[in-house]
Amino acid sequence: MDAVFLENGHVASPRGWKASVAACKIKYTGRNDLALLVSDSPCTVAALFTTNKIKSAHIHYDKSVLAHNTDALRAVLINTGSANACTGQVGIDIAAETARIVEDALGFSDNSVLVMSTGVIGALLSVEKVSNGVRETVQRLSPDLGPAAAQAIMTTDTRPKFAAVRVDLPSGTAVTIGGMAKGAGMIHPNMGTMLSCITTDAAVTHKALDKMLRDVAHHSFNCISVDGDTSTNDTVLALANGLADNKTIKDPASADGKAFCAGMLMLSQYLAREIARDGEGATRLVTVIIKGANSYADAYQAATTVARSPLVKTALNGADPNWGRVVCAIGYSGLDIDPGQLVLYFGGIKVFENNVPLDFDEQAAHEMLSKPEVEIVADLGMGREEATVWTCDFSCDYVRINADYRT
Amino acid sequence: MDAVFLENGHVASPRGWKASVAACKIKYTGRNDLALLVSDSPCTVAALFTTNKIKSAHIHYDKSVLAHNTDALRAVLINTGSANACTGQVGIDIAAETARIVEDALGFSDNSVLVMSTGVIGALLSVEKVSNGVRETVQRLSPDLGPAAAQAIMTTDTRPKFAAVRVDLPSGTAVTIGGMAKGAGMIHPNMGTMLSCITTDAAVTHKALDKMLRDVAHHSFNCISVDGDTSTNDTVLALANGLADNKTIKDPASADGKAFCAGMLMLSQYLAREIARDGEGATRLVTVIIKGANSYADAYQAATTVARSPLVKTALNGADPNWGRVVCAIGYSGLDIDPGQLVLYFGGIKVFENNVPLDFDEQAAHEMLSKPEVEIVADLGMGREEATVWTCDFSCDYVRINADYRT
Repeated sequence: MDAVFLENGHVASPRGWKASVAACKIKYTGRNDLALLVSDSPCTVAALFTTNKIKSAHIHYDKSVLAHNTDALRAVLINTGSANACTGQVGIDIAAETARIVEDALGFSDNSVLVMSTGVIGALLSVEKVSNGVRETVQRLSPDLGPAAAQAIMTTDTRPKFAAVRVDLPSGTAVTIGGMAKGAGMIHPNMGTMLSCITTDAAVTHKALDKMLRDVAHHSFNCISVDGDTSTNDTVLALANGLADNKTIKDPASADGKAFCAGMLMLSQYLAREIARDGEGATRLVTVIIKGANSYADAYQAATTVARSPLVKTALNGADPNWGRVVCAIGYSGLDIDPGQLVLYFGGIKVFENNVPLDFDEQAAHEMLSKPEVEIVADLGMGREEATVWTCDFSCDYVRINADYRT
Repeated sequence: MDAVFLENGHVASPRGWKASVAACKIKYTGRNDLALLVSDSPCTVAALFTTNKIKSAHIHYDKSVLAHNTDALRAVLINTGSANACTGQVGIDIAAETARIVEDALGFSDNSVLVMSTGVIGALLSVEKVSNGVRETVQRLSPDLGPAAAQAIMTTDTRPKFAAVRVDLPSGTAVTIGGMAKGAGMIHPNMGTMLSCITTDAAVTHKALDKMLRDVAHHSFNCISVDGDTSTNDTVLALANGLADNKTIKDPASADGKAFCAGMLMLSQYLAREIARDGEGATRLVTVIIKGANSYADAYQAATTVARSPLVKTALNGADPNWGRVVCAIGYSGLDIDPGQLVLYFGGIKVFENNVPLDFDEQAAHEMLSKPEVEIVADLGMGREEATVWTCDFSCDYVRINADYRT
C-alpha cells in the first residue's frame, strides 16, 4: 500500500495550504460559519457538481470561473447557513462579490477563487455579513486551521469530517492529499453528494485530476445515501498546487497516477463513510454490499435501493434482523433477479437462501445489529461484479431534525 | 355524474356478495385476521400484482389459478399477519391448501378461489391455524360483514378502508361497485400497491374488466406513496358477478363502459387516498399536483419524486413551509426542467416563481399546512399534462412503528 493516513491530518496538511474561519452569523450564532482555503501557489482543479436541475447560485458562479480557469486556482470560500439556491441572479452576484473580495484582499487574479455554500434553500445570503467575514478570514490564514475549517462548514453534522493521506509515489516523491467534507441530510449519490474539498501538494494536470476525481467519486461520494434526497448544492473540488515538486502526474494510468488515485480514493471513502455515519439522527453506519451482479451498475442500483429503503433503515434503527425488507428492496430495485439464486447475509449471518428463510439465532443477530457498524451482504448469484454503498439507520431524530430544521 | 357513493357502502354491498371473518391468531391475538369474500354466482376477474421481483407465494398461486380461470371465480380469502413471501414452495402449498378448503366447504370447483396475504415477510403461515379459520368463516357468511372484512385485513392500518358506489349505466341498469383496501406501510405505486378487493354485481367481460382495472389503478392505487417501498404482496382484484343483470359490458369505450369505469375510479381513488391518509404514523394527507408537464408520465415522475422525499415529508410533519425541499426534489426527479419556468404553490400560497423565492406570510402558510389535508402544486411551465399523487407526512411514529414492527 503506497498510501497511509497522517495522524491528525486535515485539509491544510499538504504543503502550501492554509485555512481560515470566521463567524458571520449567516444563520447560526456563536460559531464559525465561513471557511477559506488558500494555496500558496496556483492549482489545477477538478470539480464535480450536483446533477440536480436546480443548482445553487454558487455552482453557477463556479462553472463560470472554471470556464476561464482550470489551472491556476488559488482559494475556495465556503459558507454554511444558506444554500444560496433558488436565489436567481442576486445569488450569483453575491457569490461573485464574495469571491472578488478574497481576490482583492490577497492580490489574486480574477477567476481564481471558487465558492461553495450549504444551508437553507431560498434564503438570500447577506453580502454585508459574508463580506465582513471574508475580510476577517484573510487576516488569519494558517496551516493549523484545517480542522476549524471542517467545523465551520457543518450544518446538521454532529462532528467535523477531515483527514489526510501521504502517498509515496513510485517515482520517488512523497505527496500529501488532504480533505474535508460536510453533509448529514439531503444526501444521496448523484455526482458529488455534499460539499467536499480535497487539497494536495502534488503536481497533477487538470485533465488527469479531473479523470481521477470522477473515478474516485464514483466509488466514494457517490456511494452514500442518508435520505435519498439529492441536494441542489453538492460539490466536490480537488485542487493540486504542485508544491511537492513531484514529476507532474499527467496520466491516471501511470504508476504515479495509480498510486495517487489510490490515495485519493482512500481519503474520499473515509470522508464518505464519515458522512453516512453522521447522517442526521443516525445511530449506526450501515455498509450494504451487493455481490454476484452482472455489472457494477446493476450491483450499485440494488445497493442504493436497499440503502434508500425507509423500512430497511427503520428496522436497522431498532436493530431488528428483519431481512425480509432487504429482500423486498432488492426485489423492487429494477433488476431482473432470480429470487432462487439470492443469498442474504444480515449482520454476518446467513438468513435467506434457495428462496426460503433460514433458521438463525435472532438474539445473536439483534446483538450484531446493535453495534455501531453493521453490514448487509447480498449475493445475487448472477455474475461476478459487486458494489458497496454506505448508509445509516433512520431514527426519530432524523424526523425531529427535519420537521423543524428552519425554525 | 353517473356514480354516487352509497351511505355505509362496503365490499359486500353489490348484489350476491357476502363476507365473513375469523380470528386465527396468525400473528395478532384478540382480533380477526382472516376475511373471506364470496359471490353467489361465478365472476369474471381482473388482477394486478406487484412488479416486485420477489412475490408472495399467494401471488404465485393466484397466477396459476388465473391461468386456468378468468371467468368463473367465486371467492377471495385474505389473511393478515404473514405476507407468505420468501416462503418458497411451502408457502405456495399453504396458499393452495387454504383455497382448497374454501372450495371444498362451499362446493366450488377447482381454481375458483383466489388468496391474498399481508404481514411479515419470511414468516411461514400455519396451515392448521388458517385451515381452522377458513372452516369458521364459511359458516358465517353474510352481506353485513363487509366492514368487518375490511377491519380483519388491517396490519398497521389505524382504520378500515371501504366504500361502495352506485353507477346508473346509460343503458338503464343500476349497478353497484364495492371495495375495500388495506395498507399503511411498504406503500409505493408500482401496479397495485397494497391489497384491494373490488366487487361488483355488474356483468363485465374479463377482457373489459382487465382493461378498466389497469386504467383505474393507473390513476388511483398507483398514485400513492407512503414510504417508497414497493411491497412483495401488492394485489388489486376486481370481481364482477353479473347479478345486476345489466347488458354485459364488453367495451370500456362504450357509454356503459365509461360510466362503470368512472364509478370504479371514484371508488378506487377514495380507497387510495384513505391509504395515504392512514400512512404509518401520518398526521395529514398530502396531495401533490404537478401541472404543465409534457406528458402524464413526466408529471407522474415529478409528483412521485416529491411524494417520496423524506425531507419534504418531514417538513410537512412540522407544518413547515419549507418549499425549497419541494423545488429540490423536482430538480432531481430526472426531468429536464427549466427552473425559471417553475411556479410553486405551497398550501395554496405562491412561494416560488421566476427562479426566486416570493415574499409570503410564513405564519399563514404554517397554519394552512397544519390542517389534516394539504396540497402542493407545481407548474413546470413546459406543457399541458398533469398528474396527482397522494402521500402523507413522515413522523417519528413512522420510525417507531417500523423500528419494532416484528417484535
